[in-house]
Amino acid sequence: MQIRTSLGIAWIAGLALITIALGQTPKGGPRQMAARTIPVPATVSPQIQQLIAAPLSPTWNVIPKTAEGWKQQVQEAAEAAIKTLPALRQELHVKVEPRTIDGVKAYMVTPENIPPENRNRLLVHVHGGCYVNGPGEAATGEAIMMAGFGHFRILSVDYRMPPDFPYPAALDDAITVWKAAQKMANPKNMAIFGSSAGGALTLSMVLRAKQDHLPLPAAIAPGTPMADLTNAGDTFQTNAMLDNVLVAPDASCDKRAALYAKGHDLKDPLLSPVYGDMHGFPPTILTSGTRDLLLSSTVRVHRRLRQAGVEASLQVFEGMAHGQYGRDVKAPETKEAFEEIARFFDKHLGK
Amino acid sequence: MQIRTSLGIAWIAGLALITIALGQTPKGGPRQMAARTIPVPATVSPQIQQLIAAPLSPTWNVIPKTAEGWKQQVQEAAEAAIKTLPALRQELHVKVEPRTIDGVKAYMVTPENIPPENRNRLLVHVHGGCYVNGPGEAATGEAIMMAGFGHFRILSVDYRMPPDFPYPAALDDAITVWKAAQKMANPKNMAIFGSSAGGALTLSMVLRAKQDHLPLPAAIAPGTPMADLTNAGDTFQTNAMLDNVLVAPDASCDKRAALYAKGHDLKDPLLSPVYGDMHGFPPTILTSGTRDLLLSSTVRVHRRLRQAGVEASLQVFEGMAHGQYGRDVKAPETKEAFEEIARFFDKHLGK
Repeated sequence: MQIRTSLGIAWIAGLALITIALGQTPKGGPRQMAARTIPVPATVSPQIQQLIAAPLSPTWNVIPKTAEGWKQQVQEAAEAAIKTLPALRQELHVKVEPRTIDGVKAYMVTPENIPPENRNRLLVHVHGGCYVNGPGEAATGEAIMMAGFGHFRILSVDYRMPPDFPYPAALDDAITVWKAAQKMANPKNMAIFGSSAGGALTLSMVLRAKQDHLPLPAAIAPGTPMADLTNAGDTFQTNAMLDNVLVAPDASCDKRAALYAKGHDLKDPLLSPVYGDMHGFPPTILTSGTRDLLLSSTVRVHRRLRQAGVEASLQVFEGMAHGQYGRDVKAPETKEAFEEIARFFDKHLGK
Repeated sequence: MQIRTSLGIAWIAGLALITIALGQTPKGGPRQMAARTIPVPATVSPQIQQLIAAPLSPTWNVIPKTAEGWKQQVQEAAEAAIKTLPALRQELHVKVEPRTIDGVKAYMVTPENIPPENRNRLLVHVHGGCYVNGPGEAATGEAIMMAGFGHFRILSVDYRMPPDFPYPAALDDAITVWKAAQKMANPKNMAIFGSSAGGALTLSMVLRAKQDHLPLPAAIAPGTPMADLTNAGDTFQTNAMLDNVLVAPDASCDKRAALYAKGHDLKDPLLSPVYGDMHGFPPTILTSGTRDLLLSSTVRVHRRLRQAGVEASLQVFEGMAHGQYGRDVKAPETKEAFEEIARFFDKHLGK
């Protein structure tokens, strides 16, 4: 690839500029990377070191061949997750109660102590799981953490999922709950949040609310959003096999997302919100990690929001793979991540 | 490594939890990465694609054996950079005039149009170049871009550098200019900015100003700061050989930084400001890229600032290696990066 003599400036390492300035044609293009060993960083807490040191998710590329096979895999993961929830609720002094909201299943997640400024506030949570995992209460963990660390009441949507219910069932359910929640709190006192598929749904809910002329929330917190199902971002390549949660593109998570999209155009902004029009979005805080396969998706959404003039804040955690800021309640970084989002909500939500 | 059953929650991909919940002992630790080819991302402008596609800096690991050898290498790079400056100044309608400020060499960088709100404002610029490169006007490019895109008057410090002048000469010179600049503008109307070594110097200047009870600037913008000369961050490993500017740790840039440190403890906060006490810092905007060898240094500083209660904003550009947001004036991302910093300054500086 030819490098043209540009106005590029050698104000940093800069010495490559010699070659360019002399009009030579250095070879470039794709980067060839040799095999290597990447150590566990010492710059994170012991808890996060343990998460980073964990082997690749054993099912990252285990793809069931049938709908029944998927359901069984999802069920096994859900049962394992549900076993951890009582201790988490106890640790954070949070209770979780099932609700049905205009026909949609949900959970009301309530902290023991709600400070006065949060009494009239309500958050809506859309969970992750690549649109297929986390049925029932299995994926309430993130809502429990936000309730416990942020002291907010939270309505967590147990939206319908593939294989039985593809797009737009999840989004329809989330919007049904969003509409119903207007009767429970003033939208100026409300925020929407969620990670991974839940981060994408958070963004899609705002796009859809704009389309349908519904009230918008006062703030949103999409965590490491699955904002581009076409896998266009650079970190889908650079962080592949380094991120031990999602691990690589075109693996299990993408197959699950494909069950959700079910043939719809993956560039539809309601499926890949990075392609949506973000003008008029509420203030947004995004969270990711340096090893996150979706770091590019996260920073690209951040940039799109800024280009649209939206107040948008980005937090990127050292060394973390996809969603690891919500994986160990004992890690100081977990508390930090949720408290940072809580502060952002406190700044932007009415009382 | 044993992974203990924690309160970690399976709310994302989550299937790894099955293994953990069953009390098994999966193998973990350092990540083994196979050889691979990383393509140039399509998610950035053609100009940035070209920068990303460029081969590794030809001198990334060329280490002169003598002081004279270093001076020659620095001089060649400076001459190449200086050749590009007239076109850059013309493109951005900026003039650059040498000054001597209390014995320290500097450049006054002035845009053709200064809007009324910026007439009483002044920025101080500390350039990059791993503490050794960028003598004279060679490293004024970043200041020219900020003047051109942000329409601020800028005093760019041509600080003394190794091999002749190790630490703390650069910091001393920068602080001398900072003190003298108080006579030119109200510190409430002033900001300090710079990238790479200049990003570290920006942070060190604030640490030093705190120590010496000098006025602090109203805002700072450290770009991809060399904030940890011990190379403790994760992206020193994960982005090694992917970042085509700095390329890898323990190469040329680190050897230059060692000429600056000259045996001083690398954990001294005035050399590695990530270890400094950031309480009382002014609002800070940090800039990096997903391929930046110093992405970890950038996000770790961001986190330290937030932990100290400082208003701190992070922008991470898709696909960019170290400092590539300031390498091509024609790239839309370049304009965006500098305009984002300018907006941040406009928000926080007095008039």
